[in-house]
Amino acid sequence: MKFKTITWEKGKIVLIDQTKLPGCLVYVRCATVKQLWQAIHDLKVRGAPAIGAAAALGMVLGLSKKNEKSFPELKKNIDMLFKYIASSRPTAVNLAWALGRMRNTAVANRNKPVMAIKKLMLKEAGDIIDEDKASCLAMADNAQVLIRKNDRIMTYCNAGMLATVGCGTALGVIYRANELGKNVKVYSCETRPLLQGARLTCWELYKHKIDVTLICDNMAGYLMQQKRINKIFVGADRIAANGDAANKIGSYSLAVLAAFHKIPFYVVAPYSTFDLSLSLGSEIPIEERDACEIREGWYKRSMVAKGVKIYNPAFDVIPNSLISGIVADTCLIKPPYIKNIKKLRKNQN
Amino acid sequence: MKFKTITWEKGKIVLIDQTKLPGCLVYVRCATVKQLWQAIHDLKVRGAPAIGAAAALGMVLGLSKKNEKSFPELKKNIDMLFKYIASSRPTAVNLAWALGRMRNTAVANRNKPVMAIKKLMLKEAGDIIDEDKASCLAMADNAQVLIRKNDRIMTYCNAGMLATVGCGTALGVIYRANELGKNVKVYSCETRPLLQGARLTCWELYKHKIDVTLICDNMAGYLMQQKRINKIFVGADRIAANGDAANKIGSYSLAVLAAFHKIPFYVVAPYSTFDLSLSLGSEIPIEERDACEIREGWYKRSMVAKGVKIYNPAFDVIPNSLISGIVADTCLIKPPYIKNIKKLRKNQN
Repeated sequence: MKFKTITWEKGKIVLIDQTKLPGCLVYVRCATVKQLWQAIHDLKVRGAPAIGAAAALGMVLGLSKKNEKSFPELKKNIDMLFKYIASSRPTAVNLAWALGRMRNTAVANRNKPVMAIKKLMLKEAGDIIDEDKASCLAMADNAQVLIRKNDRIMTYCNAGMLATVGCGTALGVIYRANELGKNVKVYSCETRPLLQGARLTCWELYKHKIDVTLICDNMAGYLMQQKRINKIFVGADRIAANGDAANKIGSYSLAVLAAFHKIPFYVVAPYSTFDLSLSLGSEIPIEERDACEIREGWYKRSMVAKGVKIYNPAFDVIPNSLISGIVADTCLIKPPYIKNIKKLRKNQN
Repeated sequence: MKFKTITWEKGKIVLIDQTKLPGCLVYVRCATVKQLWQAIHDLKVRGAPAIGAAAALGMVLGLSKKNEKSFPELKKNIDMLFKYIASSRPTAVNLAWALGRMRNTAVANRNKPVMAIKKLMLKEAGDIIDEDKASCLAMADNAQVLIRKNDRIMTYCNAGMLATVGCGTALGVIYRANELGKNVKVYSCETRPLLQGARLTCWELYKHKIDVTLICDNMAGYLMQQKRINKIFVGADRIAANGDAANKIGSYSLAVLAAFHKIPFYVVAPYSTFDLSLSLGSEIPIEERDACEIREGWYKRSMVAKGVKIYNPAFDVIPNSLISGIVADTCLIKPPYIKNIKKLRKNQN
């Protein structure tokens, strides 16, 4: 691995500023929770598993500034930090999942001294990071039955090293395939408005010598019609109990196009991305972001006449009926999803 | 109308430089055929009917610099200009259609003095412009049976006043609907890489007080899923004898999404956009444009790591099976297209 998406260094969270890629590989140091909140909100760090890890470290960072005398005092600060950090982005469930793990660690050790609890919480954040690395490798392995030599795979947004602390979700699958000599070729959709596909996916795949070609999002259907791709792998930000999966806006369109062209469409996501409290994808909150991302975005001038309305939903939900399989870290999940995801829950309990 | 897309002024072709919109409304004067070729190639003027009109005037402009002594000499120059101007862009058939009309005018009057032939050719270019205006109005009227009060219409790229010398093809339909009090609301896809939807369609609709909302291309499926739109109208660059229609890249994806959501998808194009010499859409040449349009485009820096491959097809073909109706200037064409387009040809002969 040639870079580190997130690390904990001398009491600070160090992140690649992904808004500066591919031009500059710049790291930012978050010394306060507010800086971390802003980094997540501004997409300096993004990707469901990565912001889960960042949130866990954010909890540690926040508590490091406090000097609580008792568990109830500590618990109050933990709850406050939970609420604050979780508010940075609404769709990816990994944020709340990681923060929940941190809180549970504290609660389970409530009878220990505050300093000891905080040490255990730092260890828990470290575990979340280590588990994410292992989970990426597990997904990469679990997906290999789906990949043949010379496959031409389309991917969307960035579900790679930059979206996790490991080798990625959807891109981890591709890295592993090519380590195994499968010679997979990738088409990356640029992913408007913020171009995570163009800026991040192409950057990390190219750095790792994967054959990658960039297209605009609106070219995906044409490529399918021309039989230039034969599989699609994407990540996810939250998966409901029925298998409906929220992912970067445009994923739904891609899944419909794939179904029309009979191209298998796979979602790759760790167990931490499943939100089993939601029975349907329609219950997943969809983040709406500022119009300026479309109006100006990376341009240096407004590309739209003043006064024109702009709609900027950041995610959409792929219904389970359009998903050929969900590659989790625990196993490869095939339809019927409600039944097979229920089994997953049992195994985890 | 608040602006003139193309005019002939004192022996020069005056065009809106559409690459400067929406920031500045700037006109460029083409004093040579080379300048016109470049303006078409660089998309300063674009849209099938508009470049047809520009090409006709380009022929006049080219001949105005010559001093032929005989018809064979004139004919040689006409053929040269035809070939040269037609090479500026390969997909829109209106270019060759307009140049063909200009050549036919010359041939039909071959026995007249060269100067008289040139005068008739200038008149012919004027006729092409006048007919385009009339044809836009006819399409706008022919489409009204398809539009109900409060329709929410999605459109793509720019098929408006900027793409014609009249009120537009797909957008002409919308202007007319709202003149008739239908209160149509429009969603405009931004149309990567060159953002004709964001820059041009939103600009001209907003200027004409049409309720328009801009989205990224990858949001179209989500809007359909959410039932925010109920009809789609697009233009076309070339229509084969079976009704397959080439249009801006992404139109095919949109048509597949529309079919999946059972949303009617209409193509609006004048008779000059039909190429009855082609029996299938697959025979339409697809222009591939420079990678820099995606890599840098309107950005001031490269948004992709150096070395990454980029694929930039400028058009795709919507198969007739995904088209609910073709609104032509002559009539509204419904399936079966092969039969009904053949009828059209008969009526024209």
